[in-house]
Amino acid sequence: MTTATICTIGDEILIGQIVDTNSSMIAKALESIGVQVVEMVSTSDSAEEIESTLNRCSSKSNVVIITGGLGPTKDDITKTTIARLTGARSYINNDEQFAVNSRILAARGIEMSAINRDQSKVPDTCKVIVNKVGTAPCMEFQLNGALMFSMPGVPFETETALPQILASIQEHFNLATICHRTICTFGIAESTLSDMIEDWENNLPDNMHLAYLPNSILGVRLRISIYGTNKEDGEKAIDLQIEKLKDIIGDAIYGYGEDSLQKVLGDILLERNATVATAESCTGGKIAELFTSIAGASRYYWGSVVSYDNSVKINTLKVRASTIDTYGAVSSQTVEEMAEGVRKLLGTDYAVATSGIAGPGGGSAEKPAGTVWVGVSGKNFTVSKMFRFSGRRDININRFASHALNFLRLSILADK
Amino acid sequence: MTTATICTIGDEILIGQIVDTNSSMIAKALESIGVQVVEMVSTSDSAEEIESTLNRCSSKSNVVIITGGLGPTKDDITKTTIARLTGARSYINNDEQFAVNSRILAARGIEMSAINRDQSKVPDTCKVIVNKVGTAPCMEFQLNGALMFSMPGVPFETETALPQILASIQEHFNLATICHRTICTFGIAESTLSDMIEDWENNLPDNMHLAYLPNSILGVRLRISIYGTNKEDGEKAIDLQIEKLKDIIGDAIYGYGEDSLQKVLGDILLERNATVATAESCTGGKIAELFTSIAGASRYYWGSVVSYDNSVKINTLKVRASTIDTYGAVSSQTVEEMAEGVRKLLGTDYAVATSGIAGPGGGSAEKPAGTVWVGVSGKNFTVSKMFRFSGRRDININRFASHALNFLRLSILADK
Repeated sequence: MTTATICTIGDEILIGQIVDTNSSMIAKALESIGVQVVEMVSTSDSAEEIESTLNRCSSKSNVVIITGGLGPTKDDITKTTIARLTGARSYINNDEQFAVNSRILAARGIEMSAINRDQSKVPDTCKVIVNKVGTAPCMEFQLNGALMFSMPGVPFETETALPQILASIQEHFNLATICHRTICTFGIAESTLSDMIEDWENNLPDNMHLAYLPNSILGVRLRISIYGTNKEDGEKAIDLQIEKLKDIIGDAIYGYGEDSLQKVLGDILLERNATVATAESCTGGKIAELFTSIAGASRYYWGSVVSYDNSVKINTLKVRASTIDTYGAVSSQTVEEMAEGVRKLLGTDYAVATSGIAGPGGGSAEKPAGTVWVGVSGKNFTVSKMFRFSGRRDININRFASHALNFLRLSILADK
Repeated sequence: MTTATICTIGDEILIGQIVDTNSSMIAKALESIGVQVVEMVSTSDSAEEIESTLNRCSSKSNVVIITGGLGPTKDDITKTTIARLTGARSYINNDEQFAVNSRILAARGIEMSAINRDQSKVPDTCKVIVNKVGTAPCMEFQLNGALMFSMPGVPFETETALPQILASIQEHFNLATICHRTICTFGIAESTLSDMIEDWENNLPDNMHLAYLPNSILGVRLRISIYGTNKEDGEKAIDLQIEKLKDIIGDAIYGYGEDSLQKVLGDILLERNATVATAESCTGGKIAELFTSIAGASRYYWGSVVSYDNSVKINTLKVRASTIDTYGAVSSQTVEEMAEGVRKLLGTDYAVATSGIAGPGGGSAEKPAGTVWVGVSGKNFTVSKMFRFSGRRDININRFASHALNFLRLSILADK
């Protein structure tokens, strides 16, 4: 099996200032093309450490992927260190990267300085993979018989360049076939789901592997991998298992692959030629943010009123003051009036509203932190539901928002 | 200087299924007591890999901290591997851990099985640090002259045990002092900032180190570290450098340490007893989300109107249709009317509004994707400013939102 090591370079990782998320992103991608990661290592911005780590990793695995240390400032020394290590004699300017960098700097209104100019210069021992979204190019080297890539450390630049890196690895190595499918589920907790599908899981073919990928916004995604068959047979075998799974968990399955609740909701709304608005209290704009993260959302998503203060619920959303006085802001009655209010205010077909206590403070015995009410209103119905969680503030907000989206999805699907 | 390596063990890390957050948590803790982390490494649940990694790490650093691989299932082999590596002759039951485990299992309604019983048994080469919140004890070993700790991998258990591990390290080593300070800057790009402060940076004392930490929401943070002085002298030396830095970049410095623009804005608003509202088009709730990420934001943040559709700008925010017709939705005039509109609608002292093109589609030659107009309105003024970026949709949205917050910050500070 083709093996890889992943090296992240940067003092900010070693002092714990940032969490290294690149390694897991890269590992997932490598795994999807059948490359086995045998080690991840983070090292400091020190030439000696970088050299010894890269020598060790290139001797241990077929592929080495490095991220970080490519910034324009002088604490970043990955490029010069690799140049020395691979015996480079000179630096060559990469015209294509230079053009990208000129454009990026111009867009930001920054004049190109000498250190900016140096960013598109690369050691003569490398092949360049142009970074289209940042100023540091990706570089491909050979070291100790291993194929070695140096990538920028900014996660979205790493992510953008990754497909080209994978393509290059696939060109160099004869990789075993793996087919994957990700099934997106929502509303069933991981341990409950695991109990529900235990028999199904135990009866999967031997060359099929199941992984649980829980996420506070996306729900629990299930990744099925099948090894060593051709693509067509693999896909068929996976289809068969998904049909069986549908019989067990039904509409908890909301999509596949890179689907998200907001993407699937957008598709449902477009199909119905319907529009939606949101009224958010505790989620404070998170649902709006999720809707608008989809390019083209303006065709069905009209807007939101974030009513963090009760005055906004009453004056803008027209929730009755007596409703809040009698039942509280976190109640079935209030979220239903919020949902109706924003639907009428913005003139949409559907609306979803949230009111809850994200914590850590603000809870009571009856309504502890982690409690949220979600209301959904359409032309023919208004419904509400309570959910309760016990996470950290940011995790609670994510869960509130995703459960609101899922409740909206199920309510619209039920609205024939 | 006392050095440490951090080893996380587990196949689930190497396939990218989970992001390793333990390493950064441990690194931060070590750094706070003056221990320098020289490497982080993640390895698989394989005896051979664990042995070679621990031998290498214990030869390279004074302290080795291991997490993971201590579960009751048979794929977890960290304990047996370390037992062999340290020459253990037998396993000894730890009564205190056994009592904890009995209590934990009883609370979960689980009967103690043989594999549960084995969890409180430890190699005779270790000193036990009882895990009070989980069933796998922490163990302290000596290997190749290094002090080595094995900790459970569940982040909450790792975090709970950490203070005792730190105390033991402090007992064993006479630790040098490191002082750090993070300076939060906004509005100056990393390369420009680097040019501006080059002389200052070059004149820092030899025992002082500077790192750049760029982030699309937080701006460019500068971390100053000073080694080998006592805390008081170190803090003083850093203060002195910060004063010099202030003369160069002035109000681009918005805070220190864990500060964020939304946190600092909250403090400014609380100090002035003032309130704020937001009107968001292209940022689609992101600014609201940032404001409400701060616990207690309800004291100054009243809400938002996310006007994704122009009808919401006109009907709810009272932007004149003629303004949008004449100047476009992405214009100085529109964002100023949006800011004024939401300030009056929600009755706050200040308001900030955004309208732009997040991309990838929707741009024009005059207003390419990545263009945003930000408007700020107060009782005495209304101002607007254009910013331009060239990132991916989500990164553009982050930059739009953070630049809006910073423009709001500077506008409020200028409003005497």
